[in-house]
Amino acid sequence: MLEVFWGSGSGPAWRVLLALAIKKVPYESRVLSFSKKETQTPEMLAMSPRGKVPVVRDGDFVLAESLAILHYLDRKHPTPPLFGTTPEEAGRVMQAIMDHECYGLAAISAFARPLLFERLDVQRDQCVLAIDGARAELEKLERALDRREWLALGSVSAADIFVYPQIKTLERALGKPGAATVEHGLGPIATVFPNLGAWCARIEALPGYDATYPPHWRQG
Amino acid sequence: MLEVFWGSGSGPAWRVLLALAIKKVPYESRVLSFSKKETQTPEMLAMSPRGKVPVVRDGDFVLAESLAILHYLDRKHPTPPLFGTTPEEAGRVMQAIMDHECYGLAAISAFARPLLFERLDVQRDQCVLAIDGARAELEKLERALDRREWLALGSVSAADIFVYPQIKTLERALGKPGAATVEHGLGPIATVFPNLGAWCARIEALPGYDATYPPHWRQG
Repeated sequence: MLEVFWGSGSGPAWRVLLALAIKKVPYESRVLSFSKKETQTPEMLAMSPRGKVPVVRDGDFVLAESLAILHYLDRKHPTPPLFGTTPEEAGRVMQAIMDHECYGLAAISAFARPLLFERLDVQRDQCVLAIDGARAELEKLERALDRREWLALGSVSAADIFVYPQIKTLERALGKPGAATVEHGLGPIATVFPNLGAWCARIEALPGYDATYPPHWRQG
Repeated sequence: MLEVFWGSGSGPAWRVLLALAIKKVPYESRVLSFSKKETQTPEMLAMSPRGKVPVVRDGDFVLAESLAILHYLDRKHPTPPLFGTTPEEAGRVMQAIMDHECYGLAAISAFARPLLFERLDVQRDQCVLAIDGARAELEKLERALDRREWLALGSVSAADIFVYPQIKTLERALGKPGAATVEHGLGPIATVFPNLGAWCARIEALPGYDATYPPHWRQG
C-alpha cells in the first residue's frame, strides 16, 4: 500500500493528503515529528535528500516534492482528474500553481511566518514590511474567485489543493497572540476576503477533508 | 498558428522554445524587447498580468508561466513525451523540475546575477557569499548525471529543458569581465563539472536547437 511520510502543519504535505482524500486512495500514514527531527534520519534522507516532506513510497518507488507527488497520483489514479482533462485545462491548472509558487507563496509567507513562529521580537519589521505584498497576493486570489467556485477549473483541481494550505496557515498565524499587535487588516480572512472564505469552506466540505487537518492544530 | 511571446536571454522563455524544437511544433515568434519595456504594454499585461514572458497564444487560448506552457504543449502535442509515459516517470520529471525551482534556481542565481548584470560594484559581497551554495547545487546536478545522460529519464525530458537555460546563463555570467575578479572556482563549467558539460552538448545537438539560442548572446 502507498505510504505517505508527512508532518503535521506542513503545507506541502497537506496538499498530498487532500489529493488522496479527493481521489479516495487508501494509504498508510507515516507521521514524522519535526521537533524530534524525524525528517532528518538516514532513512528519510535516503528518500528525500533535502530532508523535506512529503515523501511517498509505493513499493520500490519513492518520490519527494509535493507537486511531483500530485502529478504522479493523478497519472496513477486518474479519477477524478486534478490537472484537467484537456491540454487547455492542464495548462490553466499549472499556471495557477506556478503563479502561486513563484509569487504568492513567498509574499504571503514573509508576512505570516514571523507571526506563526512567534518571532515578532526580532522579525516585526519584516512582518510589517510584508503586509502590502501579502495583501496584493490575497487580492489576486480573491479576484480569481469572483464568479467562479474554484481557482482554475469548474471543479476542484490541483491548483486549489496547492494554494489552500497556505491560506489556512495564514489564518492560523492571524490567530497567534502577536497578530493583534500588528495593524495588518488581513483578517478575519473570511470577512476581508469573502470569496477566499467561501472557497475554503468548499474545500472543507469535500468528503475526507477532516482526516487531512493538521493534528496538532486541533490542540490549539 | 501558435504564437510565442518571448524575450532574448529569458531562461523561462528558452524552455518553451526548446520544447517546441523537440516536438517540431511550428510557431510564430513574437520577440519582445525588455529594454524597450515591450513586455509591459497593455496588450501583454492583459495576457500576462505580472508582465512576464514566456506567453503563448493559440487562437483564443492564452497561457503564461513556462512550466504551465510545457505541460500544455505536452498534452497538445504528445510526441515525443516530455513528462514521461508512466506515472512513475511523470513523477520523476516533476520532482527534478521542482527540486530545481525550489532550491537550485535561487542558489545559482544569487551567484550569477551580480556577474550577469555587471553589478559587482554594489553586489560583490552577495556574489561571493553565494559561491558555496551555487557550487552545492551544481554538484548535485553533476552527481545526478553520473552514469546517465539525462536528468530524469532515459531520454530528454521537461526536466532537462527546465534546468538547461540556467546553466547556460551561468556560463554567460562566468564570461563577463567581472567574473575574473571573483575566486569562484566554478568555471569553465565543462571542466569543473564534466557531466554537466556533456549534458549541455547533448541538448545542443538536438535538431532545432540553434533556432532557440538567445539572439543577443550571439553578439557577445
